[in-house]
Amino acid sequence: MGKAITSRSEDYSQWYNDLVLKSELADYSAVRGCMIIRPYGFALWENMRDALDKMFKDTGHVNAYFPLFVPKSLFEAEEQNAEGFAKECAIVTHYRLKADANKKGKLIVDEEAKLEEELIVRPTSEAIIWNSYKNWIQSYRDLPILINQWANVVRWEMRTRLFLRTAEFLWQEGHTAHATKQEAVFEAKQMLDVYATFVEDFMAVPVIKGTKTPNERFAGAEDTYCIEALMQDGKALQAGTSHFLGQNFAKAFDVKFSDKNNTLDYVWATSWGVSTRLIGALIMAHSDDDGLILPPKIAPLQVVIVPIYKNGDQKNIISQKANEIITALRQQNIRVKYDDTDNVRPGWKFAEYEMKGVPVRITIGPKDLENNVAEVARRDKKEKASLSLDTIAEQVSKLLDDIQNSMYNKAKNFRDEHISEVNTWEEFIDVLENKTGFANAHWDGTGETEEKIKELTKATIRCIPFNTKQEKGKCILTGKPSEQRVLFAKAY
Amino acid sequence: MGKAITSRSEDYSQWYNDLVLKSELADYSAVRGCMIIRPYGFALWENMRDALDKMFKDTGHVNAYFPLFVPKSLFEAEEQNAEGFAKECAIVTHYRLKADANKKGKLIVDEEAKLEEELIVRPTSEAIIWNSYKNWIQSYRDLPILINQWANVVRWEMRTRLFLRTAEFLWQEGHTAHATKQEAVFEAKQMLDVYATFVEDFMAVPVIKGTKTPNERFAGAEDTYCIEALMQDGKALQAGTSHFLGQNFAKAFDVKFSDKNNTLDYVWATSWGVSTRLIGALIMAHSDDDGLILPPKIAPLQVVIVPIYKNGDQKNIISQKANEIITALRQQNIRVKYDDTDNVRPGWKFAEYEMKGVPVRITIGPKDLENNVAEVARRDKKEKASLSLDTIAEQVSKLLDDIQNSMYNKAKNFRDEHISEVNTWEEFIDVLENKTGFANAHWDGTGETEEKIKELTKATIRCIPFNTKQEKGKCILTGKPSEQRVLFAKAY
Repeated sequence: MGKAITSRSEDYSQWYNDLVLKSELADYSAVRGCMIIRPYGFALWENMRDALDKMFKDTGHVNAYFPLFVPKSLFEAEEQNAEGFAKECAIVTHYRLKADANKKGKLIVDEEAKLEEELIVRPTSEAIIWNSYKNWIQSYRDLPILINQWANVVRWEMRTRLFLRTAEFLWQEGHTAHATKQEAVFEAKQMLDVYATFVEDFMAVPVIKGTKTPNERFAGAEDTYCIEALMQDGKALQAGTSHFLGQNFAKAFDVKFSDKNNTLDYVWATSWGVSTRLIGALIMAHSDDDGLILPPKIAPLQVVIVPIYKNGDQKNIISQKANEIITALRQQNIRVKYDDTDNVRPGWKFAEYEMKGVPVRITIGPKDLENNVAEVARRDKKEKASLSLDTIAEQVSKLLDDIQNSMYNKAKNFRDEHISEVNTWEEFIDVLENKTGFANAHWDGTGETEEKIKELTKATIRCIPFNTKQEKGKCILTGKPSEQRVLFAKAY
Repeated sequence: MGKAITSRSEDYSQWYNDLVLKSELADYSAVRGCMIIRPYGFALWENMRDALDKMFKDTGHVNAYFPLFVPKSLFEAEEQNAEGFAKECAIVTHYRLKADANKKGKLIVDEEAKLEEELIVRPTSEAIIWNSYKNWIQSYRDLPILINQWANVVRWEMRTRLFLRTAEFLWQEGHTAHATKQEAVFEAKQMLDVYATFVEDFMAVPVIKGTKTPNERFAGAEDTYCIEALMQDGKALQAGTSHFLGQNFAKAFDVKFSDKNNTLDYVWATSWGVSTRLIGALIMAHSDDDGLILPPKIAPLQVVIVPIYKNGDQKNIISQKANEIITALRQQNIRVKYDDTDNVRPGWKFAEYEMKGVPVRITIGPKDLENNVAEVARRDKKEKASLSLDTIAEQVSKLLDDIQNSMYNKAKNFRDEHISEVNTWEEFIDVLENKTGFANAHWDGTGETEEKIKELTKATIRCIPFNTKQEKGKCILTGKPSEQRVLFAKAY
């Protein structure tokens, strides 16, 4: 079959790469650190994007599109933000090529076409957007602005991995402007809730909501809220962030509004984003050594029907029945494919659809038809059942729901088992090294200690969970007093 | 109201700019030649994109995503294509900024972070895509590849105009690979048909399908098919192109496949695209001095309801009725908004929604309610009617269809009246200078004559129409023999 991949136990990292390539989600490209999202991967992204987009619109947001390029003078206006991204910026310096006088048919950069001001390929769009908001906001009547953008962004990463960390990636970035601090904080938290709902309900990946420590904040934010997920190898993955930006960008771009009393004040801001990185999280949270396991709600294909036959007559009879099933499934808005190609054997098809993580496979052979049944296999648990053809559409519909729930519960049990309360440095190290997952530990609240722990263990504070209880304790490293536990983990 | 715009007769070009800005479709940005697509404009683009995307998928295409950047060595591989775009390329040369030692808080390009090979920001993606297809195609079983991409591209234009010609624009680009020439030509023509159907049925803009002359071909194509539309000022606008690329890119990137007999041959290619430029065409084909006129099928908002009241009691009663109408309209999938804001007067709202081109406005006042009617105004013809509230949803639904058809017919009549058969140079000049529109004229078939005519008149050959009849004649410029007429026009 030529499709076998490295097992997780053998080499988790290699398993991930093999899986992404062999399931045809993505491919490497000729551009360093940039990937190609192949049609199967893009169909998955479209389903994720459409679900998120609906949630954004349902919460009052509209889409817009701002330029890819940010002039350097705008880019550097909010200094913290600029400093945070300066080291990973792709920079456009020229706008023309010309024929190379020394090599026929080759081109070189035309030095006469040098830009007066360099353009930064957006790593994020706060600067270009707030420079525009300046023109759109005069009074409280112009607020709030609730804009989202689906776009590509570029961050020049030195070590890249398919989906998880690529130089160019696709994302959405919400940028909102508000008249009050309270409203902006509410917005930032609301959008974190939207992300959490999406990741849990659609991707079947449980998340922990919390606040980042100052060290881990978005450059230019007053507060960064995040959702943290756990992968099968016990490493955490930040699945989405939402930032309360205070008045930082309004001040950097001089965006003021007059309130009802005609008093001028700076505008309050948020920004929030999730990216194609979510696909990496999805893969690592659920899949196994045979391939992807995709949650039905966002799977490009939910059901595949494979006929088993020995001759054309058998195929015709089975195809007739299969078409009836397809019609019934489509009436329930189920995405189904009938694979009756003759050039490969059923076993090859089974392996292929397992690799691609299609949630349900229906197999129909001559014997099944005689008994008025079909064999229905679920990808997640690899269980098979013989189902009556009379009610198969309804049963498959229920099965898809069950798979969705079951995948979430499995991931949640795994996650819950991997949150360990630790009270000593030894316990802390033991969790990080052996049990893996989140270590729920006291920390003295200083950036220095946080940095020291990171150096010693590679673990970072993933978040200060929203619902954490206030509890006095001692920092696992310094023994200094602490008011609450925070979640540490090694992370992607 | 502060919303009045320059009239078309006064200054057509200024009318267009005023309209785009005041209807809030788009705005200028801080980046030279790049625009901001504002929420109202983006909602329009989303409707256009979704309709096109469905048509692409219905004809068997899938979406994918390829890198924004093209390494220079790949970019120059297909020489004609490279030469065609070399003069308008944004070029990334560095990947890092650093603090400016001389100016606190400012950044400069870090010269130590110079790329070994420059990256071109894609002006079109043939090069990066065919470099990938090379890895995906071995045998005829891997064909056809029918991929589309929705993306941003950059062409460094010196003279830009909102939507019509911007340095960065949004588009879709289809890139297909086939085993035979016949299949590739069929594909290129099929996609031109898809474009024509979309522009006529959704945008209500009639188009002429035809072939470009060699001079006007896409760089790297064997044949370019196009759809040409006519604007209200009598200038033509190329609304979409579909290219038969022959084996040019397959040869440049060495993409071969083995056929059923195990013979190796180069793969046949097409590419096809439409862009946010279509929005410019839409505006200029239909709108008037009061603002946009949008066809209902793609209008972000199809109906707006404005209540007329003198006090809160009246408003409450009207709002109750309005909500019933809204429910009934939404059941018919009509996009409707109820504008009961108190901060501006009805007259202001009327002007605002006329500016934004909302196809139907419903006004309800206390007198209307007494008579069980509402005033329904259509934007295109500015006609009003009093319609019974009992059947208003059905009637508005029919009205929207009527507006769609009526807009198409009006544009088609205008277009048909502006195709003039001319047989002498004097007639030709007269049409171009006075009547405007298309001049259907004989041409000797040489690029030199075509170029000379362009120099003399600014008119170009828009296309050789598909359905043109073979007819002997004499070239309007040189008097040399000609086999058929071609369509000349001044164009955007």
